[in-house]
Amino acid sequence: MIPRALKFEDDALFLLDQRRLPSKVHWLRYTDAEAVAMAIKTMVVRGAPAIGVSAAYGMSLAGRSNSLDFLNMAARQLKSARPTAVNLEWAVDRMESVARRQIENDHPLAPAMHDEAVSIHAEDAAMCRQIGEHGLTLLSQHPTILTHCNAGALATGGMGTALAPVYLAAEGGRKPGVFACEARPVMQGARLTTWELAQAGIDVTLIVDGAAGYLMARGEVDSVWVGADRIAANGDVANKISTHGLACAAAYHGIPFYVAAPSSTFDQATPEGADIKIEIRSSDELSDGFNVPVSACGITCWAPAFDITPRALVTAYISDRGIEPGGRGQIA
Amino acid sequence: MIPRALKFEDDALFLLDQRRLPSKVHWLRYTDAEAVAMAIKTMVVRGAPAIGVSAAYGMSLAGRSNSLDFLNMAARQLKSARPTAVNLEWAVDRMESVARRQIENDHPLAPAMHDEAVSIHAEDAAMCRQIGEHGLTLLSQHPTILTHCNAGALATGGMGTALAPVYLAAEGGRKPGVFACEARPVMQGARLTTWELAQAGIDVTLIVDGAAGYLMARGEVDSVWVGADRIAANGDVANKISTHGLACAAAYHGIPFYVAAPSSTFDQATPEGADIKIEIRSSDELSDGFNVPVSACGITCWAPAFDITPRALVTAYISDRGIEPGGRGQIA
Repeated sequence: MIPRALKFEDDALFLLDQRRLPSKVHWLRYTDAEAVAMAIKTMVVRGAPAIGVSAAYGMSLAGRSNSLDFLNMAARQLKSARPTAVNLEWAVDRMESVARRQIENDHPLAPAMHDEAVSIHAEDAAMCRQIGEHGLTLLSQHPTILTHCNAGALATGGMGTALAPVYLAAEGGRKPGVFACEARPVMQGARLTTWELAQAGIDVTLIVDGAAGYLMARGEVDSVWVGADRIAANGDVANKISTHGLACAAAYHGIPFYVAAPSSTFDQATPEGADIKIEIRSSDELSDGFNVPVSACGITCWAPAFDITPRALVTAYISDRGIEPGGRGQIA
Repeated sequence: MIPRALKFEDDALFLLDQRRLPSKVHWLRYTDAEAVAMAIKTMVVRGAPAIGVSAAYGMSLAGRSNSLDFLNMAARQLKSARPTAVNLEWAVDRMESVARRQIENDHPLAPAMHDEAVSIHAEDAAMCRQIGEHGLTLLSQHPTILTHCNAGALATGGMGTALAPVYLAAEGGRKPGVFACEARPVMQGARLTTWELAQAGIDVTLIVDGAAGYLMARGEVDSVWVGADRIAANGDVANKISTHGLACAAAYHGIPFYVAAPSSTFDQATPEGADIKIEIRSSDELSDGFNVPVSACGITCWAPAFDITPRALVTAYISDRGIEPGGRGQIA
């Protein structure tokens, strides 16, 4: 069965603690926005769409206070939890406008805000399925895809973005195979993608990020599918570090490179990739990976969480709205 | 000071235990060939030239038996310790031919074989310096290079291959900077390259393998330098997994991609890259990296230790013989 990243039950938001996967399936319960912001910051939940949905629920929890000041504080905390994903901003803005409307009309905040968060969640799940349906048209009968990081169910409020076509292919009786890049340093590919695909009964093989180019050279991959944290107006894509390199290798080998994301990830307010703020993580994430010192003492690390892939390296964008061509020419 | 990987002292081979770096500087003492073969297999020592030199000393230790049968067994054990590096075969073959000559002439094996191992070691150190001198002509006054895995002093009997030009640049008063890819899964870049460069006082910054493409896109790298485990007659290069992807990214960004290796790494007997046997490591190296389970239980992993980079992606080969053009066109 396809797992899920979050659920709203018994008046609380529950997040599957993704830091503890795959060793432990552990749900955490949230009843206030500040704690949700901290959960986003510390990556209990991650993945641009899932962060957006979580932030929406966080805002709805803050709405229970019925205080605009409190709500503004919650909005600031949630928006600043992580800088790169546009969905976070988008979801918080949308929740704020519902709050403003309720206040203007002198209506209580909580019920309308809860409904809006539930809508955002349901829309996200629906968008995932639409992405899957559009993407499915690009897959062969026995597709073998390469994916990076986790752009699956655990990254969204539904069945994922880049992995949605794979889930629908399996649902339709095809036998898809997935190569998953591990996604150093936080290992979302190794920890999350292998786990969720295994849960769903999909054939998955783990590789180190650096093995992707050689895998493509050997002709073992039909297409590359990644998600996105933000897509600038010119089509440049912010996504997990290593995406840029994958796109270079895919272009060299003539393998289609697909970016799958809900329409909320397309950010018309950001002209190009260079305008996207890239989150730089702590050196420790590299030098003390897995609580083991893996580099010489005191070494400088450069640890961007994301990178920018230019539109020129993208074959197509798959969203809930359909398939749009990238800059690489023909869509396979 | 530039550290070293091995030394022959007091009638024994000493290997710096590279598995314990950077946490601990620990030398292991070897007096028989079988133990040297095991040290190569378990990566106490690694790096094609260092493996070759170690195997030569291993053969010289076996020569003390004065038995051809014993020597043949040692040769088999040493050659099969790791399959990809050609230097291993090359060094053992060379030691065997000395042994044959001694036996034909009814001379004792041990002194001549020891002298031959010392020569192989000295030649390797000299070749490193020659590679450095040729490579230095390709570096600017304040070069910033990207390297992968460890092709430094710890990989050779001298000052390294890919890092030799950097050491000579520093020796000559330039201020080189190095970005080091960590080299998952065994982390030779993180553990060894950062350590040896720090020991030598060279400015080094660690990145995850997947960050290299984005680093190049940002214009922060002048050139990419890697070593090689075997170079086929057509110029295809076997080197640490991730090299192929680095070469794709360097080509896309128009950044020179240099392969530095002693002439013993050029294997005229192997027509092309596809003929090179690529060592596939155990799944555990990925799924239980750093003794922590990092993927879902029982997941299949594909763990090639090396990959093949086609000549078309190489700007130039830097060896002790000089600079030879690759397939990418103009040498910068």
